[in-house]
Amino acid sequence: MKTKEEYKESLRGLRANVYKFGELIEDVTTHPATRRTVEGHGRIYEASLDREYAEMMTTTSHLTGERISRYLSILRKPEDMFANSRMKRFVFNLTGTCTGGRCVGWTGLNSMWAVTYDIDEKHGTDYHTRLMDWLRRAQSEDIAVCGALTDPKGDRTLPPSKQADPDMYLRVVERRDDGIIVRGAKVMIAGAAAANEIFVLPGSRYGAEDADYAISFVVPRDAEGLTIVEARHPSDLRDLEKGFDVPSNAGGITQGYLFFEDVFIPRERVFMCGECDFTLPAVMNFIMPYRSAIGACVAGQGDVMVGAAMLVGRANGLADKVFRDKVVNMCINNEVTFGLGIAAAAMGRQHSSGSWICDPLLANVNKVLVAKLPCDTRNIAQDICGGIGETGCMPSWRDFQSEEYGELVRKYLKAASDAETRVRGARLVEWLTVGAGIPGCHHGGGSPDGAKLVIWANAGIDEKVAMARRLAGIEMKGEDRGGKREGTTTRRRA
Amino acid sequence: MKTKEEYKESLRGLRANVYKFGELIEDVTTHPATRRTVEGHGRIYEASLDREYAEMMTTTSHLTGERISRYLSILRKPEDMFANSRMKRFVFNLTGTCTGGRCVGWTGLNSMWAVTYDIDEKHGTDYHTRLMDWLRRAQSEDIAVCGALTDPKGDRTLPPSKQADPDMYLRVVERRDDGIIVRGAKVMIAGAAAANEIFVLPGSRYGAEDADYAISFVVPRDAEGLTIVEARHPSDLRDLEKGFDVPSNAGGITQGYLFFEDVFIPRERVFMCGECDFTLPAVMNFIMPYRSAIGACVAGQGDVMVGAAMLVGRANGLADKVFRDKVVNMCINNEVTFGLGIAAAAMGRQHSSGSWICDPLLANVNKVLVAKLPCDTRNIAQDICGGIGETGCMPSWRDFQSEEYGELVRKYLKAASDAETRVRGARLVEWLTVGAGIPGCHHGGGSPDGAKLVIWANAGIDEKVAMARRLAGIEMKGEDRGGKREGTTTRRRA
Amino acid sequence: MKTKEEYKESLRGLRANVYKFGELIEDVTTHPATRRTVEGHGRIYEASLDREYAEMMTTTSHLTGERISRYLSILRKPEDMFANSRMKRFVFNLTGTCTGGRCVGWTGLNSMWAVTYDIDEKHGTDYHTRLMDWLRRAQSEDIAVCGALTDPKGDRTLPPSKQADPDMYLRVVERRDDGIIVRGAKVMIAGAAAANEIFVLPGSRYGAEDADYAISFVVPRDAEGLTIVEARHPSDLRDLEKGFDVPSNAGGITQGYLFFEDVFIPRERVFMCGECDFTLPAVMNFIMPYRSAIGACVAGQGDVMVGAAMLVGRANGLADKVFRDKVVNMCINNEVTFGLGIAAAAMGRQHSSGSWICDPLLANVNKVLVAKLPCDTRNIAQDICGGIGETGCMPSWRDFQSEEYGELVRKYLKAASDAETRVRGARLVEWLTVGAGIPGCHHGGGSPDGAKLVIWANAGIDEKVAMARRLAGIEMKGEDRGGKREGTTTRRRA
Amino acid sequence: MKTKEEYKESLRGLRANVYKFGELIEDVTTHPATRRTVEGHGRIYEASLDREYAEMMTTTSHLTGERISRYLSILRKPEDMFANSRMKRFVFNLTGTCTGGRCVGWTGLNSMWAVTYDIDEKHGTDYHTRLMDWLRRAQSEDIAVCGALTDPKGDRTLPPSKQADPDMYLRVVERRDDGIIVRGAKVMIAGAAAANEIFVLPGSRYGAEDADYAISFVVPRDAEGLTIVEARHPSDLRDLEKGFDVPSNAGGITQGYLFFEDVFIPRERVFMCGECDFTLPAVMNFIMPYRSAIGACVAGQGDVMVGAAMLVGRANGLADKVFRDKVVNMCINNEVTFGLGIAAAAMGRQHSSGSWICDPLLANVNKVLVAKLPCDTRNIAQDICGGIGETGCMPSWRDFQSEEYGELVRKYLKAASDAETRVRGARLVEWLTVGAGIPGCHHGGGSPDGAKLVIWANAGIDEKVAMARRLAGIEMKGEDRGGKREGTTTRRRA
Repeated sequence: MKTKEEYKESLRGLRANVYKFGELIEDVTTHPATRRTVEGHGRIYEASLDREYAEMMTTTSHLTGERISRYLSILRKPEDMFANSRMKRFVFNLTGTCTGGRCVGWTGLNSMWAVTYDIDEKHGTDYHTRLMDWLRRAQSEDIAVCGALTDPKGDRTLPPSKQADPDMYLRVVERRDDGIIVRGAKVMIAGAAAANEIFVLPGSRYGAEDADYAISFVVPRDAEGLTIVEARHPSDLRDLEKGFDVPSNAGGITQGYLFFEDVFIPRERVFMCGECDFTLPAVMNFIMPYRSAIGACVAGQGDVMVGAAMLVGRANGLADKVFRDKVVNMCINNEVTFGLGIAAAAMGRQHSSGSWICDPLLANVNKVLVAKLPCDTRNIAQDICGGIGETGCMPSWRDFQSEEYGELVRKYLKAASDAETRVRGARLVEWLTVGAGIPGCHHGGGSPDGAKLVIWANAGIDEKVAMARRLAGIEMKGEDRGGKREGTTTRRRA
Repeated sequence: MKTKEEYKESLRGLRANVYKFGELIEDVTTHPATRRTVEGHGRIYEASLDREYAEMMTTTSHLTGERISRYLSILRKPEDMFANSRMKRFVFNLTGTCTGGRCVGWTGLNSMWAVTYDIDEKHGTDYHTRLMDWLRRAQSEDIAVCGALTDPKGDRTLPPSKQADPDMYLRVVERRDDGIIVRGAKVMIAGAAAANEIFVLPGSRYGAEDADYAISFVVPRDAEGLTIVEARHPSDLRDLEKGFDVPSNAGGITQGYLFFEDVFIPRERVFMCGECDFTLPAVMNFIMPYRSAIGACVAGQGDVMVGAAMLVGRANGLADKVFRDKVVNMCINNEVTFGLGIAAAAMGRQHSSGSWICDPLLANVNKVLVAKLPCDTRNIAQDICGGIGETGCMPSWRDFQSEEYGELVRKYLKAASDAETRVRGARLVEWLTVGAGIPGCHHGGGSPDGAKLVIWANAGIDEKVAMARRLAGIEMKGEDRGGKREGTTTRRRA
Repeated sequence: MKTKEEYKESLRGLRANVYKFGELIEDVTTHPATRRTVEGHGRIYEASLDREYAEMMTTTSHLTGERISRYLSILRKPEDMFANSRMKRFVFNLTGTCTGGRCVGWTGLNSMWAVTYDIDEKHGTDYHTRLMDWLRRAQSEDIAVCGALTDPKGDRTLPPSKQADPDMYLRVVERRDDGIIVRGAKVMIAGAAAANEIFVLPGSRYGAEDADYAISFVVPRDAEGLTIVEARHPSDLRDLEKGFDVPSNAGGITQGYLFFEDVFIPRERVFMCGECDFTLPAVMNFIMPYRSAIGACVAGQGDVMVGAAMLVGRANGLADKVFRDKVVNMCINNEVTFGLGIAAAAMGRQHSSGSWICDPLLANVNKVLVAKLPCDTRNIAQDICGGIGETGCMPSWRDFQSEEYGELVRKYLKAASDAETRVRGARLVEWLTVGAGIPGCHHGGGSPDGAKLVIWANAGIDEKVAMARRLAGIEMKGEDRGGKREGTTTRRRA
Repeated sequence: MKTKEEYKESLRGLRANVYKFGELIEDVTTHPATRRTVEGHGRIYEASLDREYAEMMTTTSHLTGERISRYLSILRKPEDMFANSRMKRFVFNLTGTCTGGRCVGWTGLNSMWAVTYDIDEKHGTDYHTRLMDWLRRAQSEDIAVCGALTDPKGDRTLPPSKQADPDMYLRVVERRDDGIIVRGAKVMIAGAAAANEIFVLPGSRYGAEDADYAISFVVPRDAEGLTIVEARHPSDLRDLEKGFDVPSNAGGITQGYLFFEDVFIPRERVFMCGECDFTLPAVMNFIMPYRSAIGACVAGQGDVMVGAAMLVGRANGLADKVFRDKVVNMCINNEVTFGLGIAAAAMGRQHSSGSWICDPLLANVNKVLVAKLPCDTRNIAQDICGGIGETGCMPSWRDFQSEEYGELVRKYLKAASDAETRVRGARLVEWLTVGAGIPGCHHGGGSPDGAKLVIWANAGIDEKVAMARRLAGIEMKGEDRGGKREGTTTRRRA
């Protein structure tokens, strides 16, 4: 397994194709716009080799029996999903934010593990073997693989093939013996800058007329024809500054737009091509583990918010009891989303390919909560921290250092602690709640509205109506008209 | 294992010592104030013998290898707790409400299973063997055992021995060679009327001066000196009525006040007597599984609310899409409390006595949620059902039958369905949300405030502050003053 | 103006046509099912003659210059609506619950005051004069007038004239020179038993094909052909009991089903007959003041909940600081709904008939809150009060008095206070939160979903989009396509 | 009254004493860090001269009878407060954010209007006349006056005079015949850069030992010895950029730290000096109108959020009905805080000095809501807008213009609308919800916890307990022990 330095070295070996602010980033490991996200991902490599964390971060490959990073493993039992949750929470604790350059790719390959198995069963293809071969190599090289699902989507009321511009969803434009040519884009892709390769999946369910959009493959981050433009995030220009106004160098998020201009994908890296009947399973098998474990992510960041808010509260001189109830409410939010993910894992089932499928109901309930509770947790953190945390309302690090008036700044920012401690704490709260540390909880991994549709479909509504009918002594006479209308009452039992 | 009929027969064999409305209940199995709760508990016996549910309702005794009711089993692994949650949800689905006459006793004996083991370790007593002997017999006779923790408590600011009246907590008044004499009360005890025996535990942590209050034992429901007065519940006089204004005969709740007037407890039925250092463990080992699984109880009742609300909505002629989002929100509430219980089980650990200890943090988070979410679920059910559900605002069954104007009542209560279907549905919503079906979610199993204290103690607050400090580059100089004040900042790492 | 006794006397003079539990109520002023609601309404008469409250309860008739009950006044300025809110809050404080037998009628006549004026303007009718004449007489006789809007509605997806049964909405079946004959029902009508007359309005907007349903009139409560059946409410059989299990005799709610079997309404009492274009204004002019002031009702009951919860908390021996934050949250809920009503009044406008029209947006926002916040307030009251309040889990008054074991009941129910104080307090919490004291907040005055439609229509959505467009520097090119699609961006200003 | 240009000219006439990022800002009207806030304040001047808005923005001076800006008027009746709320909402609509450089000063002078009156009454001083004289001049010169209350506060557990550093609260260090010398700081002061003068008030209640801290005065923004350092805010470096990544040039917020290094305040500008018994009234009279009207501020920004979210939703091609319920919930949040402010005004009373005192209970309830509801509104806006709004996850304006790949960026960012429209809309959502547009709702105008203390003190708790006692038939025997303990029950009335 790679060391942090070997990992960074591997990134430096890639062709420069990542841009931000209109300029090419020559070296993602040192450029201020990307170095924090690389560092965050690097800490995963570090922790994997640390005896204290190795058990949580690594596992045994069921393909080779070798010790591998969990991020390249197939989740085969509930305990693997528990470890997924624990590891994500820990990595947020460690880096303060999202290291999305590994977990989306991991979840994507697990989804396709089951889906390629099923496609092969039905269509007699060899996708599963291709994936297995690629995975074996990925494990042995210990690469970082990010994942890409979201298409630009254009007009949301139209399917891919009905769009005025046919490229609004990523698609095959040419099929060749040795591979395929793809065109289009994937957008808001976390951690691409920190990845060696990118695992691509369909972003939605497609029908027969959209078969060209039913594609899955894995591609090196620096493939010919692939251009990556990093999106902005809150306070992103501070990334380029010196001093403690960016409170942490331990991690950071990037989310890129990936433009595929007729990129060639070799045959052995293609895992779906035209099997539109399997796009829904690909999406569902992705969201189940993803929406389960994302609750651990936000819990992990919530842990840091608890700590940061209390740090500032104490720095202000306040006794813990002043904000105890608030902190408990933050903790409750954290444990709810963490716990729901554990529950979704525990209530899951094994797919015939060997991969573990989390409970769809609990996983999607968690997604809805993940769009809500962290927002409340952030609000409480700001409440405890005061105005300096709410909008980071303090002079800049440069003012802090000013020869002219820096002394005044430091004099009036001190409290029970010295000024720097207090400011660093408050900048951390700002970064977590209204700054660059915020991951896309609301829409990352799909929207809460989408999750609600899955809940409705999986909640056994009509069984519940039948329960109520039995208890109330109402029996249906004649046809049920689809259970959608209540009929007449006959005598109750007993 | 007993049939439902044998179970009822066993209750009829007990001395009549249960009262309500100032009168003695001669036969709890037929008296309208208690027959529904007995019927509800009877359905558990029925389901245990039903092939379809046997796997969920029964297990193998680790003492005897015989098939036994889960309600008399020792929970030894996460899967036992999963089954606990599933079974409770199912029993609420089946009976519409709480069958507390079995689950509190079950949880109590599991708590004392671990606690007696530890007392014996420390004090060289033989409580664990006594409990094992009693349990073996209880399993073979398949008895229903309710549980009793809550003391009257008197002035809440004073410990037991400082109360003006020393009987405000149940206590030993005499120690004899063959047993002990106890005096006092246990209050709000669910399902005592449906139980064969009562398992008694301390209700709080006691100090050395309160050693006489540190007692645990099991007693027949009809012990000499024991008087039970059933408490009122909303709309409880309807229990005595005819017709469908009590919508269900499948179940019902009773909560009794148990008065112990110098009751003799034989030695072999005493599991704690004076070991006040074990009162906290007794309480904690009780609340962990209890607060985990109670989320399944309210989810099970929430399932019925979903069904009942939709039944009325459809009876009114409305299409599902009108209330789909509301129903999804109800389902989310249900799955959150169910799921948190599963998570607390999955994250638990095994005690040296073999019993499974759920995660204290997740269990207590669930308790807080159980005091809130069902209230929201009830509100949504009333929203969907309309005014007739909100306060049961419909003429009575007797009006429905009136020769004089019953026809008018039936004419104007019909909607898309006939009047009786709609009324039965709405009465079920009323019963569940503002009637006799409501269990004590808020305070059953202890108050949410108590749970918050446990959360605060178990949330690893100072570790979280340390996390924040590391991320923000703040290191402590000199002594940490107990982590309660933030010190000065030294240089950040990297 | 009448004394309380004269008021009761006036009710005794009416024909007995009110039923409950299948039986005719001979005298509503003494029958236990109705006497509390009559008493509650009687206290309004009492307070109107009490110097301390006269200013709040009475005003000067703009018709006669005489001192009259506000419940028979025309609301002509914001201060009248402020007094409306203050009076309702006070009456809830006084009686613990709703005295709906006056306020719905009051709001109805105010709505028709404006509507008859407008109908006459347009159609040259003389409805406004009829209403003025009736009102002058009502004021001089100081009668209690309840109001009736809600029709049975049958299948909710069909308009009145398309229903299988044409009587599912109240309608004219015969037009005569001297009046009209009406048939149908009005349901869930508050306080009819305590009223002298009933003011009837259309319950919805009707189109031309439903003109027969567009009717408004006022009718004596004991009119020939009118039968009233009182609906059930939670724990309503306790109304018939002795002792303190019904905690208050100062007030109570009834909600009746009114069956009109070809009732004759004399011409001078008819205020709308067929003018379907004015059904929407009738409804809107009703809901505006009603939904404004209902916030004061629930605040008034919330005040009592605050008091009752604290009473029990203190009786338990707890210091106020233990539940201070909870009580503050209850108070916030109360003031929000009270305040929104005041705001709706302050932001209103005067109709050309002289009546004051509250702001539709704020009034309907308040309706949505009234369906939510009291539910939260009740939950907090139960939290503070403990299990005895949550489901009234205490032995009955009869047990309390038992010669056999009453002493035990009283011994173990005492706390820092004696048992009776504590039980009375807890019964009050039960009555307010899960008992007969609960008014129909959710659906009374219409559903929250209906209010949301009015909010959407009145919120100036497209203006807000235009604001955003201006700020973001987006201008529309060419046609706006109804503002429903965003066009292209041209240069921003500045 | 001044034109916008004259206003800007007046700012250019001030000494440069405002810093940001370690550098002096030579001209606040053009420097990118301050020009947007100046422009926002300038639009107030513009609107005041615009016939359409003059009624809302201006009023008649009760001192001179001249037309003046409302921001320099004394609030004397509820309608003045209504106008205050309407104007603030409108100005947020106009500028997208806070123009705090006028409203805090306005509120401060209104507070001191009443307080100086009362000090003079009690102490025979002439503060009120001084204030009147200053105000007359301020009105005639139509100056912009910001306000300053918040002190650095140091260790929050210690009063000013007990702090290790005595300057942690602003204080008098020298009293002279012609005036006073003050030292210390005021922090997080909104809009100082856009103001001509600064109105200073005490930030808390002080006791006798802290008399030196009991000071109020007004000072030119460029007074000798006064240094202003602007605090950071989210994404503040974008202020310095070109292009549409800062979506609006119509307004902006600054919040400065004001350092007073022995600043001389002439006698006629001092309105309190040592009268510590009036520090509490000064604070209370400030927070009452401030916390009332702040609900209109957040409503005004909420209006823009509604518009911006819908703009993006429509740009994505979605029909309004998809997000109608969400938008209604946003509108409800807006109207609740707006309405509560109106209610606090309507329920107010006139002070003997002529100024209008809002209701303390409703004003402080509003403060609590203002710390919560906008957070929910922002969350919904992000929900509707999707990932591009949540964290502004789109390439930068510079990428948009890139010759190399700008075409790709524009191609893949288009939806139903062109890319620029969509991006501008989403940047506006970002700016409002996680960017520079966020005002300090949580702590601006004091913390919600402080507001809760005022609520507790003003809610009439013991009266509510007495209400409950009367209803429940509980009367107190003998002494009440301060109403803090419930006594015994005697017979109920009737």
